[in-house]
Amino acid sequence: MTLDQLQKLLSMAEFHKIVQVRALAVTPDGSLTLMLPFDPAYTLVRASGAYHGGVIATLIDVAGTMSCSVVQGRPTPTANLRVDYLKSPASCDLYADSIVRRVGRLLGTADVTIRDHGGQVYAIGRGTFVMAAPETSPRAG
Amino acid sequence: MTLDQLQKLLSMAEFHKIVQVRALAVTPDGSLTLMLPFDPAYTLVRASGAYHGGVIATLIDVAGTMSCSVVQGRPTPTANLRVDYLKSPASCDLYADSIVRRVGRLLGTADVTIRDHGGQVYAIGRGTFVMAAPETSPRAG
Amino acid sequence: MTLDQLQKLLSMAEFHKIVQVRALAVTPDGSLTLMLPFDPAYTLVRASGAYHGGVIATLIDVAGTMSCSVVQGRPTPTANLRVDYLKSPASCDLYADSIVRRVGRLLGTADVTIRDHGGQVYAIGRGTFVMAAPETSPRAG
Amino acid sequence: MTLDQLQKLLSMAEFHKIVQVRALAVTPDGSLTLMLPFDPAYTLVRASGAYHGGVIATLIDVAGTMSCSVVQGRPTPTANLRVDYLKSPASCDLYADSIVRRVGRLLGTADVTIRDHGGQVYAIGRGTFVMAAPETSPRAG
Repeated sequence: MTLDQLQKLLSMAEFHKIVQVRALAVTPDGSLTLMLPFDPAYTLVRASGAYHGGVIATLIDVAGTMSCSVVQGRPTPTANLRVDYLKSPASCDLYADSIVRRVGRLLGTADVTIRDHGGQVYAIGRGTFVMAAPETSPRAG
Repeated sequence: MTLDQLQKLLSMAEFHKIVQVRALAVTPDGSLTLMLPFDPAYTLVRASGAYHGGVIATLIDVAGTMSCSVVQGRPTPTANLRVDYLKSPASCDLYADSIVRRVGRLLGTADVTIRDHGGQVYAIGRGTFVMAAPETSPRAG
Repeated sequence: MTLDQLQKLLSMAEFHKIVQVRALAVTPDGSLTLMLPFDPAYTLVRASGAYHGGVIATLIDVAGTMSCSVVQGRPTPTANLRVDYLKSPASCDLYADSIVRRVGRLLGTADVTIRDHGGQVYAIGRGTFVMAAPETSPRAG
Repeated sequence: MTLDQLQKLLSMAEFHKIVQVRALAVTPDGSLTLMLPFDPAYTLVRASGAYHGGVIATLIDVAGTMSCSVVQGRPTPTANLRVDYLKSPASCDLYADSIVRRVGRLLGTADVTIRDHGGQVYAIGRGTFVMAAPETSPRAG
């Protein structure tokens, strides 16, 4: 998948008209970097610029599922997601670096790090994604 | 905390102007129900009406942290969050039922179920929240 | 699966000669109760009788995987496991109540509660288990 | 904490007379490596030598809590633990590499990788540990 194809895929999701993730880098093994430009709409408290935890969880979900999708060549729905909030980011663009930890017949596992431009880490996430071909529903796992 | 106070607290979060959660019920032990009216803006694929996983994660985060906040009488930031996606919801309002599983000196644990009006369960979540008084940052845990 | 069959299955695991779980109840929908009689060998600190966290994690793993195995009629390897330690148990027999939260084509989800005879809860666990038929390895998920 | 001190601490746990973890390396920032020599007693199926998942979870719990304890200079009880089983190890010694991802006033986070001598990864784990000083119980978090 090229960077252009990844960006196109990201842009197809309706919710990404709100949480406007951009693709910065991608490799064939599913390693990728997304960027979310800061928007006061993403905050818990507008005055402080502190991000809502849901935006961070969203970014981790998107980065992890995309890593597995890149490897698999088709959508890999999220089976489960875990987020550790290490430090609250405020008023900065967020970067999500994602790598695939496992490619299985049925499941994939990806690790995501949320950081700012300077490398300060704010959250780490891990998810399990469905690698098997779907039968019916988008979350057929 | 009264239902009105919970709604007011929810409405203070900037991101909730987008993910417009409403408080339906709350009890002093932190059990509560939130409702998210369906909006095509929340979807992965507009045509199918399938929710983006990040919206579900957001709803779980908000319900869990609010359960602990109700018990503690102050904000209880999310330390970590886990979401299991069981079935993909589409084009329906979502309800989040949350209960507190543990109230500790430092940490609280809450369980959240995401369902539709008819009781069909779509996701289950569990989180750890910081019960201790903050020193400095919003995620001082 | 009858209670006798469940006990026989549990007894086949070599490690259960050490962590000696007993089957107390099982229903066709995968709800079951296991019991682990206290043994000082399971402790972190022998003097206090406080359980080692690994014993509790083991009990949750076994209960959850067995719940899914009962439903599926074959072994369902653990894909991932999450444990929340709520309170440290000491010098008491432990009971694990497990229920299936989801039965999918590929994955199952189970919830486990660790308690003593009086109902005091010490830990809660959740796991994802592989429901699909194996191809090769015991963890083919 | 020196390697000798870490080994002494590990040896104090009663359950480690069964799950006989050895300390191989430790640095002041909490990075450490433990080793568990293979023993048929740790298996699910004696014939295949496949490890019981509970032994792997135990190893992750121990490595993670020790990483945080090294940094904190006192025991740091496990608040929660998550294990992803990537591949089933059989009949080999296991190594646990653990690093601290966060040191907070109340909580620490550690990442653990379970591998064999040749570097094949079998499981990855992440945990939250209580860094705050205890009041009463060993799991006062």
